[in-house]
Amino acid sequence: MNNLPTIDISAFLKEDIGAGDLTALIISSSQEASATVVTREGMICCGQAWFDAVFEQLDANVKITWHCAEGDWVDAGAVLCELQGLARPLLTGERTALNLLQTLAATATQAHFYAQAVLGTGCKVLDTRKTIPGLRDAQKYAVVCGGCHNHRVGLYDGILIKENHIMAAGSIALAVERAKVIGSILLEVEVESMDELAQALEAKPTRIMLDNFSLDALRTAVELVNGRVELEASGNITLDNIRSVAETGVDYISIGALTKSVQAVDLSMRIDLEEE
Amino acid sequence: MNNLPTIDISAFLKEDIGAGDLTALIISSSQEASATVVTREGMICCGQAWFDAVFEQLDANVKITWHCAEGDWVDAGAVLCELQGLARPLLTGERTALNLLQTLAATATQAHFYAQAVLGTGCKVLDTRKTIPGLRDAQKYAVVCGGCHNHRVGLYDGILIKENHIMAAGSIALAVERAKVIGSILLEVEVESMDELAQALEAKPTRIMLDNFSLDALRTAVELVNGRVELEASGNITLDNIRSVAETGVDYISIGALTKSVQAVDLSMRIDLEEE
Amino acid sequence: MNNLPTIDISAFLKEDIGAGDLTALIISSSQEASATVVTREGMICCGQAWFDAVFEQLDANVKITWHCAEGDWVDAGAVLCELQGLARPLLTGERTALNLLQTLAATATQAHFYAQAVLGTGCKVLDTRKTIPGLRDAQKYAVVCGGCHNHRVGLYDGILIKENHIMAAGSIALAVERAKVIGSILLEVEVESMDELAQALEAKPTRIMLDNFSLDALRTAVELVNGRVELEASGNITLDNIRSVAETGVDYISIGALTKSVQAVDLSMRIDLEEE
Amino acid sequence: MNNLPTIDISAFLKEDIGAGDLTALIISSSQEASATVVTREGMICCGQAWFDAVFEQLDANVKITWHCAEGDWVDAGAVLCELQGLARPLLTGERTALNLLQTLAATATQAHFYAQAVLGTGCKVLDTRKTIPGLRDAQKYAVVCGGCHNHRVGLYDGILIKENHIMAAGSIALAVERAKVIGSILLEVEVESMDELAQALEAKPTRIMLDNFSLDALRTAVELVNGRVELEASGNITLDNIRSVAETGVDYISIGALTKSVQAVDLSMRIDLEEE
Amino acid sequence: MNNLPTIDISAFLKEDIGAGDLTALIISSSQEASATVVTREGMICCGQAWFDAVFEQLDANVKITWHCAEGDWVDAGAVLCELQGLARPLLTGERTALNLLQTLAATATQAHFYAQAVLGTGCKVLDTRKTIPGLRDAQKYAVVCGGCHNHRVGLYDGILIKENHIMAAGSIALAVERAKVIGSILLEVEVESMDELAQALEAKPTRIMLDNFSLDALRTAVELVNGRVELEASGNITLDNIRSVAETGVDYISIGALTKSVQAVDLSMRIDLEEE
Amino acid sequence: MNNLPTIDISAFLKEDIGAGDLTALIISSSQEASATVVTREGMICCGQAWFDAVFEQLDANVKITWHCAEGDWVDAGAVLCELQGLARPLLTGERTALNLLQTLAATATQAHFYAQAVLGTGCKVLDTRKTIPGLRDAQKYAVVCGGCHNHRVGLYDGILIKENHIMAAGSIALAVERAKVIGSILLEVEVESMDELAQALEAKPTRIMLDNFSLDALRTAVELVNGRVELEASGNITLDNIRSVAETGVDYISIGALTKSVQAVDLSMRIDLEEE
Repeated sequence: MNNLPTIDISAFLKEDIGAGDLTALIISSSQEASATVVTREGMICCGQAWFDAVFEQLDANVKITWHCAEGDWVDAGAVLCELQGLARPLLTGERTALNLLQTLAATATQAHFYAQAVLGTGCKVLDTRKTIPGLRDAQKYAVVCGGCHNHRVGLYDGILIKENHIMAAGSIALAVERAKVIGSILLEVEVESMDELAQALEAKPTRIMLDNFSLDALRTAVELVNGRVELEASGNITLDNIRSVAETGVDYISIGALTKSVQAVDLSMRIDLEEE
Repeated sequence: MNNLPTIDISAFLKEDIGAGDLTALIISSSQEASATVVTREGMICCGQAWFDAVFEQLDANVKITWHCAEGDWVDAGAVLCELQGLARPLLTGERTALNLLQTLAATATQAHFYAQAVLGTGCKVLDTRKTIPGLRDAQKYAVVCGGCHNHRVGLYDGILIKENHIMAAGSIALAVERAKVIGSILLEVEVESMDELAQALEAKPTRIMLDNFSLDALRTAVELVNGRVELEASGNITLDNIRSVAETGVDYISIGALTKSVQAVDLSMRIDLEEE
Repeated sequence: MNNLPTIDISAFLKEDIGAGDLTALIISSSQEASATVVTREGMICCGQAWFDAVFEQLDANVKITWHCAEGDWVDAGAVLCELQGLARPLLTGERTALNLLQTLAATATQAHFYAQAVLGTGCKVLDTRKTIPGLRDAQKYAVVCGGCHNHRVGLYDGILIKENHIMAAGSIALAVERAKVIGSILLEVEVESMDELAQALEAKPTRIMLDNFSLDALRTAVELVNGRVELEASGNITLDNIRSVAETGVDYISIGALTKSVQAVDLSMRIDLEEE
Repeated sequence: MNNLPTIDISAFLKEDIGAGDLTALIISSSQEASATVVTREGMICCGQAWFDAVFEQLDANVKITWHCAEGDWVDAGAVLCELQGLARPLLTGERTALNLLQTLAATATQAHFYAQAVLGTGCKVLDTRKTIPGLRDAQKYAVVCGGCHNHRVGLYDGILIKENHIMAAGSIALAVERAKVIGSILLEVEVESMDELAQALEAKPTRIMLDNFSLDALRTAVELVNGRVELEASGNITLDNIRSVAETGVDYISIGALTKSVQAVDLSMRIDLEEE
Repeated sequence: MNNLPTIDISAFLKEDIGAGDLTALIISSSQEASATVVTREGMICCGQAWFDAVFEQLDANVKITWHCAEGDWVDAGAVLCELQGLARPLLTGERTALNLLQTLAATATQAHFYAQAVLGTGCKVLDTRKTIPGLRDAQKYAVVCGGCHNHRVGLYDGILIKENHIMAAGSIALAVERAKVIGSILLEVEVESMDELAQALEAKPTRIMLDNFSLDALRTAVELVNGRVELEASGNITLDNIRSVAETGVDYISIGALTKSVQAVDLSMRIDLEEE
Repeated sequence: MNNLPTIDISAFLKEDIGAGDLTALIISSSQEASATVVTREGMICCGQAWFDAVFEQLDANVKITWHCAEGDWVDAGAVLCELQGLARPLLTGERTALNLLQTLAATATQAHFYAQAVLGTGCKVLDTRKTIPGLRDAQKYAVVCGGCHNHRVGLYDGILIKENHIMAAGSIALAVERAKVIGSILLEVEVESMDELAQALEAKPTRIMLDNFSLDALRTAVELVNGRVELEASGNITLDNIRSVAETGVDYISIGALTKSVQAVDLSMRIDLEEE
């Protein structure tokens, strides 16, 4: 799994290395080393291209051999990859490379758990625009890597009509009417009650977001809508209750927690110096 | 509390807004609105300058009034700030501004809990280089904002001698000797046993990191060292056991979890359109 | 019409001004001036925020008064705006500001003509990913400004299955099946014959692109599909024949020419020095 | 023809690829493919280094073989280059690479037609500062690639005295006098009448721009000046009348249309998947 | 003297401030202060806009009053400007602002001394492309500010034929012939002997650079050329001998030392805290 | 000596090459050449990685062979390196590569002279934050390369309490007390008299800066302090008097001149075209 996201590693290297790795100077510039990256937790491997780019930029001669594919599940204790090269670039790049991997894998792994939780229901789990500043693209990539799906990427590639837009337009019908004049590959309306759902249904958007609906209300909504428009559930949905929500028959469930928080995967790199 | 970190908001805005906020077009460009930001959790307020900069860049006429100071503790339910201006920039900037605030406050709040846990012990809690890629500066700022302290910022402003450097040099003594030739405002050695501690002590670095020492071992180390060099405990230290560690008498405790994970604070912005 | 696109004017200023405007030194630094921008062609006004930002960055005291709103049609000969301020920033910013305005207005004006051509048919005109390198966001904004609509912005916010993807998957059915596993806010299949259309229809994507279909074939397709999926016509469609295409009943027509070429609008800025 | 312009491809890739090419995931990551780029119009080939850099950045193993040199004329229907590599990077890079090539070739091809039109007259065709925002360098490069020549690149590397500078200085003589104090590798004065030409001639600049002079007036000017200073004609000059203008004996003709508009060359990339 | 160079201050601030000014936290965030910048050496004031931009970015409420104009000579001991505002931004911005001012003023002041040395000779002193990496634009600006003049800014805005180009072309005549086909606003040939000068003269470039000619040789060259082409002396020219060189009658003298070295002007900022 | 500083060469190339090297077009694109870089002054070699990156970016096939290691002393007249490749990239990259080398080597060489001057005294020479804007990282790297040492890199990685902070806090004791609450890897106090030294000593910072102390006063201070805290001398220290200062027994001497001024090393690249 590798769909070539855009990667600019230089700012990440700059914030760690700056004027240079002072401690690396203790080690001879010709010292060779090998290294292995091990995960202490089960995880979805995500961010290989970023990890590789760190060492590529520091020293194009570092060799990296991955023992898993991008997007694979890897058990706790497994070796993710082996590295071979000069000791200095291995030591200097270690933290930046691990920071990238542990952050992206965190999101991909969360995505994996959510995707597993709804397996077989036909329901898709979506991310949101609640992301870590600066990492929107990377996190959206990790979400797909983990088996979930992307909602709109930003304000520019989808219309999502919320309470304020409805109030400003005067009604759901008028808001959707205006939205159709604007046009977009997604035209979704957020509703907070059955009454609003009925109005939204009338207005024929691409999708309706059911915000904070109870399981019963979701079931009623699915029945009422009967496939005429896509339905997305959102609000207070966690790993604990997501399957019940998915089983109501909604098409999508969106989860802010996928990307707004990061529980870094616990990785370690063990470096061995070669005998000289 | 505001020590003027460097802030470049434009990349954050670009990833959300891109070609423009399509949904905002539903609302009249002259519609005025007010808004309040409320926190649903107790938190340290951190990131006001970033939040302000988002709206400043979108529309310099948006007025923001903060009800708390940067670095203050704010209870769940409290209003953090009020905004007044045109509805479009308020809606367009909402997510980017909240993403910044919820991410920085998350780190500051974690820092606050760690700082509180050691209160009165004289021990300082430090961050590490395990940070979210791209947010090193912002997270280091948030750590101070929350009452903890910064370790070296990167590989360039401190020497931290680890196992590999020691092996490459031949001994702790030789590694420290080389490090003194290099020089830096910090010269720290990581040790994993009492034996290594004794060697490190001999070598006279600025600070010694005691990696994964038991409480007993920490106490012994503190007694042995007797103030001749600063001591930093690290490894497997959490909010649950940090006070016991601090009470051993070490000068510093470093906590990777402070910055490598992010539990976004739960914030909401409520926007009210003005009657026209 | 202003939906706050992200604007970074500094690179544009840098490429024109560099070490400074040598010729401006001929004029006294206290010389005041006024200016008017006139269009020599009918146009949709697009890019006011970029134009304003040029002068804001050079000298925050330049006053700009627009005589038309963003998105308005303006006749040949009309005054678009008036400027008042020191002569130097007016002269120094003139070319960069006009280059932005003439380029964005070019796209918006083309979009306007296409939108007018299909008026009343219910068909929407879409842009494509054939854009001027570096101006994707700005051109997508201008397309909306001129009354047309955005297709997916890039490879990341929509799935468009073309011939190669179908061949790699083995069939349209298999390609769409894989695409549904990936998921996206848009899932479109490009077909080149009635036979492929039938297969695509079976696979139930969000939208089907009819590539280079004759008018007759488009009519047959519309009838066959009967509203079960959105239809988009593409290929060899120009201002001359677009209305006929729209009248076949397709939902969308995509036009590469909207953004891949630029016929800069002919603008001029007349600057008058104040008597001293 | 390759004079090594500075190329930064990453922003161009980012605007198309973002979080990744979703559709590419349909294709196996080990699928090999070959491709050919064909032009549907006669054109000057321009932008090979940019095209190559797109694929180099996506996957350094993509092999590209050009069938023409940078700057060559290529007939409609010709194969420009062949590519060989993994299918995913070929598909993912296709649009960005073609957008660059079709945009640069458009300018180079225009430049070629203008250069051909004046062939043998000894007159040189110049570009202007009317360029597509963000593409100043690339377009200046393409102009040279197509056989025309660069005027000053920006406000910083040449002095061009226009009406306002003359008014501010009081007279052409005084403006040129001030300009000589400033100094630059180019010192040009724009004149709009024979009378102004006489004054400019007296002031001894490097070059005089004859703005909107009739053919007769240009001939008179050339005779009058008699080689004492370079003459540049500008204003309302098109491919239709440029030869007549060149035959008046002016040294230069500057053409805003060379760079302010772009008629993208019609290119296509045909990709063939290898049998597995 | 202010011709509006492009200024991007953010990278300069980032390298000094990073995660924030820790020491500033000692001072109350409401503490007001005033400050004066004094020069300990005579200097040309250069870089006011950069200095101002530093504080504008840190805190728009800092007031700065300049006691000299950009480009003015200022005696040792003079107050350059006064600042008024909060103490924190004054202290935080001090070093970045002074670093910019002392660096730009260094170049402008050198330029001033060179310009003074040739005063009245009609000869102009030029800079070269030997500049501090990253400061090309700023130094070219400072050179003009100090009364000298810019040579070509880079490889793109002037042709300078040196020994290697001549060897590659086969002769000066052939090199110039090729250069005329390429075209540029400057076409200069470097010669190292009278013989080469004669060849160059024949080829009719815009300018001839006389490299390392003795004073006698320069005089002979000026006489020989007799105004038919501009002459530029270069090589081993210092403040001590520049007047003699200028008096030979050459039109230009180029001086690498103007920009390749920097003797920072000795400035100090004195900050006074207001009584509270 | 190579500790992998972060290097972004693209902005440096862009400022010299822009739209392309016009003069390079005189030379055949297949012309091969070799080159040698020679220093006309004794110098510390510093910046090899930057020099290499220039040519790597222009043409990955240029081969560079260094005759000295990074950080080595090289005598006047020595060949630093040899290059082999196409003539065009060698000529196009020459100036940018030399500008980098001559600037970094300038700082490293200065650092070398200062380090030599204190050899055997046990005193370390430090740089300051008085750096060339944009080159902080590169200069800090060069300082280490030349044998001196880095002070704090910016305002964020060390606390340095100066007069204003003391006044704002009320006393040295109070300022240091606040600083200890903030915390940092360096806590230094600047003092200007014996009396202040005594107060500072009481407050127990990491280091005390003795500003403008006479040699006698320095000796007294060293005796008084007797190793309880590190001492740093600063102010009016030059190559002429630094050894006397070092011999007083202070631990550090900080020298603004190391980085605030640049005396570019005199380098030349001789290029030889291969016979064809």
